[in-house]
Amino acid sequence: MISYSRWTTKRHSCTFSQIVLSFVVYNVALFSLISYKGTKWKEKSSIKVRTFLEKDDSIPGSRVDSLCESSPQIPDGFTLVILNHNRTDTLLNGLKHWDHVRNIKKVLVVWNNPGVKIPDDESIRTASPHLDIAFLPQNTNSLNNRFRVFSHILTEAVLMMNDDCIVEDDYVQMALQAWQTMPYCIVGFHGRGVSASYQYQWNPAKNYSMVLNVGFLHREYLKMYQNAPPELLDIVDKYTNCEDILMNFLIANHTGSFSGVLVETPHGVQSVFSTHKSLSIRPDHADQRTKCIRQFVEYFGYLPLKGNPFIIAPYNAFAHLKRQ
Amino acid sequence: MISYSRWTTKRHSCTFSQIVLSFVVYNVALFSLISYKGTKWKEKSSIKVRTFLEKDDSIPGSRVDSLCESSPQIPDGFTLVILNHNRTDTLLNGLKHWDHVRNIKKVLVVWNNPGVKIPDDESIRTASPHLDIAFLPQNTNSLNNRFRVFSHILTEAVLMMNDDCIVEDDYVQMALQAWQTMPYCIVGFHGRGVSASYQYQWNPAKNYSMVLNVGFLHREYLKMYQNAPPELLDIVDKYTNCEDILMNFLIANHTGSFSGVLVETPHGVQSVFSTHKSLSIRPDHADQRTKCIRQFVEYFGYLPLKGNPFIIAPYNAFAHLKRQ
Repeated sequence: MISYSRWTTKRHSCTFSQIVLSFVVYNVALFSLISYKGTKWKEKSSIKVRTFLEKDDSIPGSRVDSLCESSPQIPDGFTLVILNHNRTDTLLNGLKHWDHVRNIKKVLVVWNNPGVKIPDDESIRTASPHLDIAFLPQNTNSLNNRFRVFSHILTEAVLMMNDDCIVEDDYVQMALQAWQTMPYCIVGFHGRGVSASYQYQWNPAKNYSMVLNVGFLHREYLKMYQNAPPELLDIVDKYTNCEDILMNFLIANHTGSFSGVLVETPHGVQSVFSTHKSLSIRPDHADQRTKCIRQFVEYFGYLPLKGNPFIIAPYNAFAHLKRQ
Repeated sequence: MISYSRWTTKRHSCTFSQIVLSFVVYNVALFSLISYKGTKWKEKSSIKVRTFLEKDDSIPGSRVDSLCESSPQIPDGFTLVILNHNRTDTLLNGLKHWDHVRNIKKVLVVWNNPGVKIPDDESIRTASPHLDIAFLPQNTNSLNNRFRVFSHILTEAVLMMNDDCIVEDDYVQMALQAWQTMPYCIVGFHGRGVSASYQYQWNPAKNYSMVLNVGFLHREYLKMYQNAPPELLDIVDKYTNCEDILMNFLIANHTGSFSGVLVETPHGVQSVFSTHKSLSIRPDHADQRTKCIRQFVEYFGYLPLKGNPFIIAPYNAFAHLKRQ
């Protein structure tokens, strides 16, 4: 009997190439969906490309071959990005938790406290002896800073986190694995909706169309966010709110599909002990977010958000069910 | 204010190109994982490719540009493939259900009844007045026929179905949407596991590592299956069993990740009324599947299956929970 590894190499190189290209074609198709809003792309939408079915093996260096020749090194793990404003104790309490979470390659603290000194090394080391942490002082206290393209981000996966939130390690790892299967979605722990009259919905009934900041996203989306028109970024600064909503709008507009997938776990997102209050408990928080949604819709010219009917949950959360 | 569509076109073409390439790179990476079993690919694993970060805009016709020029037409919807052996009444009962399910582009009945006439047109039309159905008579009653590369399959998504199984329309659509976000996985309704001693597990406790035939998969995987070594396909024929297990082995070996994602719904997969018995109630069914697993492991030289800790479920199945 021949060994399987030899078989894989010798007999499957063609099939392998074809499957790689089929997913390349799939992704090109997915991202080409943006074309329906862009004139330039729209003009090209009727072009039929060569697919793997039409591959001509006699052409050396064809696209199929050139793609298969490469084997890029994608860094594993993820970068944890924590936004902080005026509550250092909360941040340090949170870091105690993250110190025990696996696969964190780097922690970036977006230090939205202009003119305020960052915590001393000893406080940071006491809270988190193991993590590689960088504090990134910002010139302005803007929520848009959360999505800056920091050069420290070397992983494709970025976990966006509020400083007063933590998630259990097992579910962080589960969400990371889920994100790796759908890296063009936000995979996160808070789902929200929009009503027919563009009202922000805390707990939509049928499906959800936004996944908020406690979640994984691809670092490429940070670039997309920072390249968004200033008028959109200004809305975020005007309300000191809605940066997460804008990210969902941009992703949904870009992919033509839903922006994120919600993860439900037994305990959900937990709160770090904090003596400070969160922005989201402001009495006008929901009203502000409705205003943002309506202004974004006006700017985009349509509502790009799509309802997602499914969630991700731990397999063992269903262990009590009689499976088929 | 400029319109959003113009902004998308004029200001974002570069970002769009970059994101397309980033996912191309991602998929190349994912599928390059096969390299760790293949000597030829292994040798190349240290090659660093040009990524979008290194893109040289001065090079005309670079990979980034050439990928963005195309906008392929991917057919929507899915092809329903139903395997049938010796129970025409069951099949026709099932077709009555599928007649009301959305997004079916074509139904293929793999007619594993050599020498037996297919049902007459009137019976088929009575059961299913709306569907485009093709009966595909097979020369042998082999379970490997289930995964043949039929030219009738024009969609990327293929829903593999047993003739005595049905799934409610809403959950078929939900699973299709989920599959579209992770097209290199099987997205299906039956999860199974393997113990440390390579025993087949009906209801594994912690995670599952196989997703069986009632589920979506990419049509490219049919090619991979048919190109598998005859020794593996012979094991399926020897037991008249395990074709679904082999598919999971092939996919997991190919991607280096888990082969599928399980969908849990309130009612799961339902049975069509049938006077015939299913293969899976044979008393030696589980034993046979354990034997298959052990023979596959011996052939592959390792167990490629990976445990998946998460499932997909309908959002509204959690409607009773207090959401965060």
